Parts: sequence; C-alpha cells; structure tokens
Amino acid sequence: MSFSNLKATKHLKKLAESPFNLKELSPERIAKFSAHNCGYKLLYAAERITEEVEIALFELANESRAHEKMLQMQQGAIINKIEGYPSENREVLHTATRDFFENPIKNSNSIKAASLAHAEVEKLKSFMKEIDQENRFKCLIQIGIGGSYLGPQAHYEALQLFGRKDRNVFFLANIDPDEVVSVLQQVDLSETLVLVVSKTGTTLETSTNEALIRDHLQRSGLNPQEHMVSISMPGSPLDNPKQFRACFHIWDWIGGRYSTTSMVGAVVIAWACGFDIFWEFLKGANAMDKVALQGSSKENLPLLAALLGIWNRNFLGHASLAIIPYSQALRRFPAHIQQLDMESNGKHVDQRGNLVDFETGPIIWGEPGTSAQHSFFQLLHQGSTIVPIEFIGFANSQVQQDFVFKNSSSQQKLLANLFAQMIALATGQSSDNPNQQFSGNRPSHLILGEKLSPFALGALLAFYEHKIAFQGFIWGINSFDQEGVQLGKKIADKIIQLFQKQGHYPLAEAYLKEL
Amino acid sequence: MSFSNLKATKHLKKLAESPFNLKELSPERIAKFSAHNCGYKLLYAAERITEEVEIALFELANESRAHEKMLQMQQGAIINKIEGYPSENREVLHTATRDFFENPIKNSNSIKAASLAHAEVEKLKSFMKEIDQENRFKCLIQIGIGGSYLGPQAHYEALQLFGRKDRNVFFLANIDPDEVVSVLQQVDLSETLVLVVSKTGTTLETSTNEALIRDHLQRSGLNPQEHMVSISMPGSPLDNPKQFRACFHIWDWIGGRYSTTSMVGAVVIAWACGFDIFWEFLKGANAMDKVALQGSSKENLPLLAALLGIWNRNFLGHASLAIIPYSQALRRFPAHIQQLDMESNGKHVDQRGNLVDFETGPIIWGEPGTSAQHSFFQLLHQGSTIVPIEFIGFANSQVQQDFVFKNSSSQQKLLANLFAQMIALATGQSSDNPNQQFSGNRPSHLILGEKLSPFALGALLAFYEHKIAFQGFIWGINSFDQEGVQLGKKIADKIIQLFQKQGHYPLAEAYLKEL
Repeated sequence: MSFSNLKATKHLKKLAESPFNLKELSPERIAKFSAHNCGYKLLYAAERITEEVEIALFELANESRAHEKMLQMQQGAIINKIEGYPSENREVLHTATRDFFENPIKNSNSIKAASLAHAEVEKLKSFMKEIDQENRFKCLIQIGIGGSYLGPQAHYEALQLFGRKDRNVFFLANIDPDEVVSVLQQVDLSETLVLVVSKTGTTLETSTNEALIRDHLQRSGLNPQEHMVSISMPGSPLDNPKQFRACFHIWDWIGGRYSTTSMVGAVVIAWACGFDIFWEFLKGANAMDKVALQGSSKENLPLLAALLGIWNRNFLGHASLAIIPYSQALRRFPAHIQQLDMESNGKHVDQRGNLVDFETGPIIWGEPGTSAQHSFFQLLHQGSTIVPIEFIGFANSQVQQDFVFKNSSSQQKLLANLFAQMIALATGQSSDNPNQQFSGNRPSHLILGEKLSPFALGALLAFYEHKIAFQGFIWGINSFDQEGVQLGKKIADKIIQLFQKQGHYPLAEAYLKEL
Repeated sequence: MSFSNLKATKHLKKLAESPFNLKELSPERIAKFSAHNCGYKLLYAAERITEEVEIALFELANESRAHEKMLQMQQGAIINKIEGYPSENREVLHTATRDFFENPIKNSNSIKAASLAHAEVEKLKSFMKEIDQENRFKCLIQIGIGGSYLGPQAHYEALQLFGRKDRNVFFLANIDPDEVVSVLQQVDLSETLVLVVSKTGTTLETSTNEALIRDHLQRSGLNPQEHMVSISMPGSPLDNPKQFRACFHIWDWIGGRYSTTSMVGAVVIAWACGFDIFWEFLKGANAMDKVALQGSSKENLPLLAALLGIWNRNFLGHASLAIIPYSQALRRFPAHIQQLDMESNGKHVDQRGNLVDFETGPIIWGEPGTSAQHSFFQLLHQGSTIVPIEFIGFANSQVQQDFVFKNSSSQQKLLANLFAQMIALATGQSSDNPNQQFSGNRPSHLILGEKLSPFALGALLAFYEHKIAFQGFIWGINSFDQEGVQLGKKIADKIIQLFQKQGHYPLAEAYLKEL
C-alpha cells in the first residue's frame, strides 16, 4: 500500500495539526525523549512530538514493514529494483562488507558476500605489510568521484588525528584541470601511491584523471604499475594486474555511496591511519547494523531518527534538514550524508513505478559548529523558513588535549554552545524589540557519543546509512538506484561531441556560442 | 511601502500563475536572456521567466527604489538600522575598502572611509616587504571565525594556484580543541606567522584560540609578539602593539561577512599570493561595485540576479538555492555565500520593525561540479522539491595546463557537463520507464566568466555582495545586522557558568545530565 494510504499516515496528518509547543520544553521531557544504544544517545525532546505522535510513528514503521525490509536487505534479498520495469535488480549488501564480528547474518547470500569482502580485507592486510616494509610512499592520491570520493574523504579526515603524521592524503575527483595541477604541486610522484577507484572502471572523470596521472608518472621516469592500485568490480577495465600493483574488488551489490566500508574507503584509511584503526571502524559500523535489526522500538536508533525525519518532512512540511556536527573532525561528514541521503531518497517514483504523491528525501546540508553559528545560524533562528536540525556531538574530544581559558575548557565551551543552540531554537525569546524576538518552535535533535573514536565513527556512518534506508522502506521507494543522473551524462556526451565538431544539437550550440 | 503591497508584487503574483515552460528552451531564448558586464555573462534563459516577467521584475526594483538604496549604501548613509528601535545604527561601507580606482564615490563619508582603508593597504604593503625581507615565515595561521574565516578561506583557496609554493596557510576557527591539535601538528611554530582576527577583539572562540596559541609559542621559547599580528577595530583589546608585531584596522562600518576585501582577507591573501594578486582582486571587486550603481537594467548584473532570486523565492515559492561552481578552486565559495546570504537576509522583521508577511532569504548550499553531479544531483533532477540553481563557470581554466583524453580536453568536459545539466534540468525527458522520466522545468542560470583570475574573483565576490544587498533593499529588511545569533550566545554563557558550578538553569542541567 502507498505511503499516503497507510492508516498511520492519516493518523499522523491529524496529529500534525497541533504539534507540540517547544516553549514547554522541560527537564522531564529531555529525560523522557531520550534513547541510547551502541555508545550513542539520541536526545529528541526538542522535536515537535508528543508520546501519541511517537506511538503513531512506530505504527507507521510497522505498517510499512520497515523492520522486515531492513532484515531482507541485510539478508541479501533483491531489493534494488522497480517492479515491472527494467532496473538494476540487485541485492543491497554493503552491510556484508563488515559482517565479520558477532552474530553474523546466517542467510547464504550474505554469507557469500561477507566471505568475498573478508578476503579483500585479508588482502589489504598483506598489502599494507608490503607497503610498510617498502617504506617508500609518503603521499597517496585517491582518484575517484561521488561515492569513491566523499565517503573516503569524510571518514579519512574524521580519523586523521589517529593517523600517521608522515603520510599525506590527497583526493582527485573533479574533471576540472586546475584540481590536478593543485594536487601535483603538493606531491613528489616518486613517493606517491595512487588509488584509482571506480566501480565500473569507466567513470569519465576518473578515467581522465587516471590517464593524466599515469602520463605524469611516465614522464617522471617512473613505472606506473609500481605506484598504482585499483579498486573496482572484477573484470572491469581497472581490474588489470599488468597496469596496477594491486587490484582490490567491490561488487555490484555495493552502491557507490554505500561503499565507504568496502575497499573504496578501506585502502586509504588503512594506509593513513593503520589497519587496526580501519578494523575498529568496521566493528563500529557492524555494531550499528545489528542495532538496525532490533525491534521496532526507540532503541533502534536509525529507525527512530528515520521516523523523526519523516515527521518533519511529510507531516510538518519542512523541505530541508541541516546536519551540524559539533566536531571539526566531521567537517566533511555533512557532504557525505548529503550525497548518501539525497541520491538515495531524492526520488519521484515508488518501487512499483508509480509517481509518488508525497514528499520524498529532503535537501541535506550543513557545516560544523561552532563555526556555523557565526555563519548561517541567523536564518535558522529568525528566517522565514524553518529548518529542522540534526546535531552531532561528543562528550569528549578525540585527542584529550583540552585548554582551560577563563575557567572553562574548550570542550566545555563547545558543548555549552551545542546545548544552547538546541534550547534557543526550541524555546525562543520574547522581547519589546521585534528584532530581538525569537519565535522558537524550531525543531532539532542530537546524536551524542562519548568520543569520536574509530568505532564511534563506524557506528555513526551506519546510523545514517540505515536511517536513510528506513525512510526509503517507509516511503516505498528504491533508495539504491540513481536513474536521475543519467540524462545529464547523456547530454554531456553530445556536447563533448560538439567540441569535437560532430553532431548537431541546437541548444548546446547556443550555449557554446556564449563561451 | 511593504514588499507585499507593492504594485509590481501583485502583478508578479499573477504572472507566477503560469510561469514559462522550460521545455520550450530554444537557441533564440538563450541568446535573448543573456546580459554581460565586467567580464561576466549572466545566462538566464533557463529561468522560468518571460519578457513580461522581466519587465515586472525591474518595475519591482524601481518601485522599491533598490537602485537608489545601493547608491545611498555606497555613499555611506546610515542604513544598518531598524527605525524606532535600538539597533546598530551605522553606515555600510565595505565598498570603501576598495574604492581606490576609477570614479571613486565623491560623498564625504565614503571618501573618509576609503582614505582610512587605503592607509591600511599601504601599511600592508610595507608590512609585506618587511616580512619578505625577514624571510622567516613558511606558515600562517589565521585565527578567526564567521566572517573572519569563511571569506578569507574561500578566497585564499580560490587564488592558491597563483600563490607561492613555499607558503602554507591554516585556518583556526572552531572552539573544538581537536582543531588546534590538528593545526599544531602541521606547523613549526618557529616559522609561523599568526593572524588574530576579530572585529571587537572579544569573540569567544578567537580569544580562546589566541590564548592557546600564545601559550604554545611561549612554551616553545618563542616571543609571541614577533609572531602575532592582529586585525580588529581601533581601541579593541587586540589593538595592542605590545602584544602584536602589527595591528591592522577595520571599522564598525564593515560587517564581518562583508570584510573579505578589508584587512580581514587582505593580509592572508597578500602573504600567500603576493600583494599584486591582492590588488587585482580589489580592482575586480571595485569594478563590480560600479556595475551595481548602473541603472535599473539587466546590465546591472547583481540587480538582475537579485530579481531572478526573488522571482524564484517569493513568486514560484522555492525555499532553497544551490550554488554550484564548476571550478574546484571555488570549493569553499558556496560556504562563504551561504554565510553572506543567510546571515544577511534570514530575517523576520522589516526596517521599521514590522514582522514580514513574505518569505525572506532562502537556504543557500552547494558543492563544486562536476563532483556534485555524482552526489546530490539525483534529487535536483528527480526529487519532489525543486531547487533553483546558480551555476558559476569559466571558459578557461586558471592554470592553462589542460589534458586531452579521448579527443576532448578536461576543460571541455567540465563545460560540457555544466551546459548539459542546465539543459537536462530545464527540458527534462519523457520515457516509457517512469524511473527514467524527468519532469524538467527546474530553473537555473549561469554566471560565466573568462577565467577565474584575481580580478574575476573580486568581481564575483562583489556580484554576490550586491545581489544580496539588492534583495534586502527590495524586501525592505536590514541585511546588515545579525540579532538572531545573540540568544544562543546568551544561553551558552549560562551553560558555561554551569560547568563552573554557578547558577541554576534547569533545561541546560537536564541536557548536561545526559552527557
């Protein structure tokens, strides 16, 4: 049954006519609307819900069989499909890339996938030993775009403080020729390892940048095969030991944006921070995978977050969602979640190919706090559009080198600001000066961890992956394809031909004339 | 008269009932809806306007006296105020920080401001000579947050390829103690210059990080006064030659987010790229300032862009705006514009203190293309919420080291993708497979330059500054204060006191209990 016709949907629509007034935020409420699991607390007292709304949201989850679909996904059912139409028609098994710990999924598809993935992890372990012994490489360039860039970059940066100080990482994603110049200025190719990452091995940007770097290696008198490593599907043009000193594998059951825990993110993280850090990261992701399989209750943190998001999106009508980590290490994490969420749930048809008659994925954006407070928070407090916020915070800093200034530490100031924003947005302020009035009732919640350890980072990644998957399950859409990116590619190919003086395409010609 | 009651507003509301169908995008239309000035073209055929709409938009500009208010601003009238209420009550004269070239504004306020600003530029010139001769500093840390961070960072990065390879820049903005650790790991303090930037000299994050770095310098046996430079208002706690080897000045007529062309951005850009590069950057900004004073016509590019934005925001009802530069050098430019726009126009009262009954500034977000195509463009093409887009592109790369692969160059591929996205979003595609349908009619326009030179970057910055100011003028709001950030600060102070065990604040205590 379509999302719009569910009983719970109708009930929630009614409840949304009088959402909770956040000016009545109280200590009791903060204690009550709190859930915890896997080292994280989810504090959601500042969302505009009542107990009745919470119950109805879980009814929505049950009615749409969200929990059952999560189990099917992790068991390797073919859920990446649109019924009755040509579609990708695949399993969605990124969870198998880390199902090596307690209580692995027992279904044969998942076992097979996990075993393939685990063999790559073993391969990586040996490869890292080889590289460490060689002791040659001080820089690494990862060539890849989209999922082969944003996830690895965000998570490498998040773990950088645990990394080796003598190893530098650069990402080369864009086709913009200036980016290559910039990267090449910063490395000595003779001591640089180059990862080329593309699932199919045919991505335009990645193939171009690969050829370019290969060319530079050769012109520097170096043997590209000694410097280059590929990560792609078995049999892809990149899966070629003659050209690459090592070829790591992914498979079509891992979506690009869900590939951070596969070799796509593994090689760079293990190289820069050490294999053990990567292994802890996997463990954390796996632990949250198991949380997502727990029942339909608030301890299932990704499900709870999914439902709060749906309340804001479909019932309170908020079209965007800001993700604000109070952690500089997570500076690129919002950009990764932006991709993960918007590419997964920015859809207009359901899994049967019907046009949807409800809102799907919101616009996701964000920057780290406290910096963001001095940037766009003016609009969040007083703008005419209300933006729900997901705050991310940690009780302790990563490296426990805190600094006391004027009787409080930097970490205390960071946390004080985080809580202050939640309170200010929720409760507002009246004033005789209209410019100093704050309407309040601007909803937010907080995902609060102990410390951004590798384990906690893995858990946080999986938390978002499953939150997004749950929303897709509840909406009845396919969160795992990306047909929307095809048309642009097709037209770009035509325009590239025009640059080569073939073909006739009046619209593009008119634009090219303006160059 | 309020925006809602303007004659043109009413007319535009009527016209918005049947916006132009972008499936009818034609070469003639592309040629017609094009304007150029100051080295840029604005191509806006893919906005949902007709000639009638365009005329009505310029009527709106005239009726709200937008052009006159821009002149008043640049002439130094006191426009940063709310009538009848306590407010900042100041001039808005960031344009004076670069009014050193042709046709300077002749009003006495502006002349005085430009003369003060020019004296600082001269001071900078001498300071740079001194630093260059000393030849000691290889790294620079800029400590500052908000406007003292995002603008300088975005513009330094945009000019980095023109910079000196032996000079490295780091920014320290966040109160997060992990950020300091990360920066300190990457520099040798003995060869590091430290800029401390805060208008008032009392910003929490900046004071804390200043004290911390000062402490580290001392503990390394270095004399902080030899390493540290301040940028603040005359008389601020930072304006102290005993503590700083140089003290540069800004004034209260420069808003933080509008301060990039003042010493706030000048010192880092001049140090990293050379004084001449900075001077060209100023020249470009100044040239666009003059464009903004041209009549109420489409050659006034910032006014045209402001009107297109208002059409999308107030008449077509789009709550967010994506800024997508097809230039990796502009990777942090959207984050700067996000601050500039959302802090300026995320307002709920007009200049007379009346609550507005119309939408003000949209949510601004974005990442560079082509990378973004592989991230969130799925939602832009097929999501349920339509997001207007401002594309930024350049005919040529910054450093002309292009690479030909499969018969086209990287720059050609970059431009082909940019035009392809505009066409695909506008015209859409029908298909028997509903998942491959594209509804089209998703509006965008393009700001197209020759090359991202220092001059072009300055012009682009001023283009956005004035676009945003024009929108504020038309809406009748004050784009130059930020009262919305005060409440959070006030509550954060209370919570910091709680960490020090003073005071009683139940809501914060309840949150702290969850730590």
